[in-house]
Amino acid sequence: MSSVSVAASTVAASTQTLTTAQLLTEARTHNVWLPRPVSNEQLQAIYELAKFGPTALNGCPLRLQFVVSAEKRAQLLPLMMEGNRAKTAAAPAVALLGMDLHYFEQLPKLFPYIDARSMVANMPAERIEAQARLNAGLQIGYFIIAARSLGLDCGPMGGFDAAAVDAAFWGDRPVRTLVVCNLGYGDPAALHPRGPRLAFEDVGAFV
Amino acid sequence: MSSVSVAASTVAASTQTLTTAQLLTEARTHNVWLPRPVSNEQLQAIYELAKFGPTALNGCPLRLQFVVSAEKRAQLLPLMMEGNRAKTAAAPAVALLGMDLHYFEQLPKLFPYIDARSMVANMPAERIEAQARLNAGLQIGYFIIAARSLGLDCGPMGGFDAAAVDAAFWGDRPVRTLVVCNLGYGDPAALHPRGPRLAFEDVGAFV
Repeated sequence: MSSVSVAASTVAASTQTLTTAQLLTEARTHNVWLPRPVSNEQLQAIYELAKFGPTALNGCPLRLQFVVSAEKRAQLLPLMMEGNRAKTAAAPAVALLGMDLHYFEQLPKLFPYIDARSMVANMPAERIEAQARLNAGLQIGYFIIAARSLGLDCGPMGGFDAAAVDAAFWGDRPVRTLVVCNLGYGDPAALHPRGPRLAFEDVGAFV
Repeated sequence: MSSVSVAASTVAASTQTLTTAQLLTEARTHNVWLPRPVSNEQLQAIYELAKFGPTALNGCPLRLQFVVSAEKRAQLLPLMMEGNRAKTAAAPAVALLGMDLHYFEQLPKLFPYIDARSMVANMPAERIEAQARLNAGLQIGYFIIAARSLGLDCGPMGGFDAAAVDAAFWGDRPVRTLVVCNLGYGDPAALHPRGPRLAFEDVGAFV
């Protein structure tokens, strides 16, 4: 892939008009996919948008792999929960979205104003993991919205053998897979009614 | 606030056109605020958009308080890290964004298809917390994008005495504050150059 063509598609996205209906209020998680391929360029363009979302200390702990080969797909499927296998087999592309527990190694580059690397690296391991999980979570939120802004549909899933996926796909790297996300063009005819959401009064207040 | 007026502003938002520049590529974290107020209706409208983003089992663990009174603001300020106090004092509004560790209590309503409540409630406490943190993180990502889609700027912060904020604002409720987010109209003249982001090659791959 040329970086020129990716830059071009990113620019195209940033000038096209969107609605919150497309991004949030009418967007749906999809489990059934239309037979329409997704290119590597489109997949990278999701990251090129999502990377701009804010994280604590600009730490950017998200790491990702786009599973596009038949071999890797075959390796992934048995590691998904049974109910997630058929849709993951059928999706045009699949993203593994994880957190880097050593994300602090990038802080001298990402947040050079103070010694942020020492600050984070010296925290207890469970606090580092909590920070990585929260901020990778933010980035996965940006990723889903970014995919939708590019006209793609998402099928994010938490049901998989995380230890096995980590071993198979990240090897010795200190990355933990948090979400496996199918990507493509969902079939709107296959959608069930949307699940309810909590009313503002049940989750929020003005104080 | 009438629910009718909130519904009206949400509908208005879903039909107005947006760009990824406004949401991501040119959006910035703000620390200096223009003297332009933000209404409770605008604040609730952020939630009314963000709530539609997907979470695992539709669990929706995010809980929030919008700090709009002078008394509560005065209570919050000394609990912020010193470097975060002046900007939090000056922001038109402040949101406390937290995770409900007992979010499973809502699952019979949110995900009635299986006994999801028992499934989650019987997990070890640290796994419940990890799930709440990841999914509240996704929702905070949606919240930031939703605020930007409504024309607001965000100043999300992780630097505060979390235990003290929890005690002061959530009391006995099993909620843990994850992010404190200033909200308003940022002063573009006060922005510093944006911090760098990681190149795709440094975080991602096609496999």
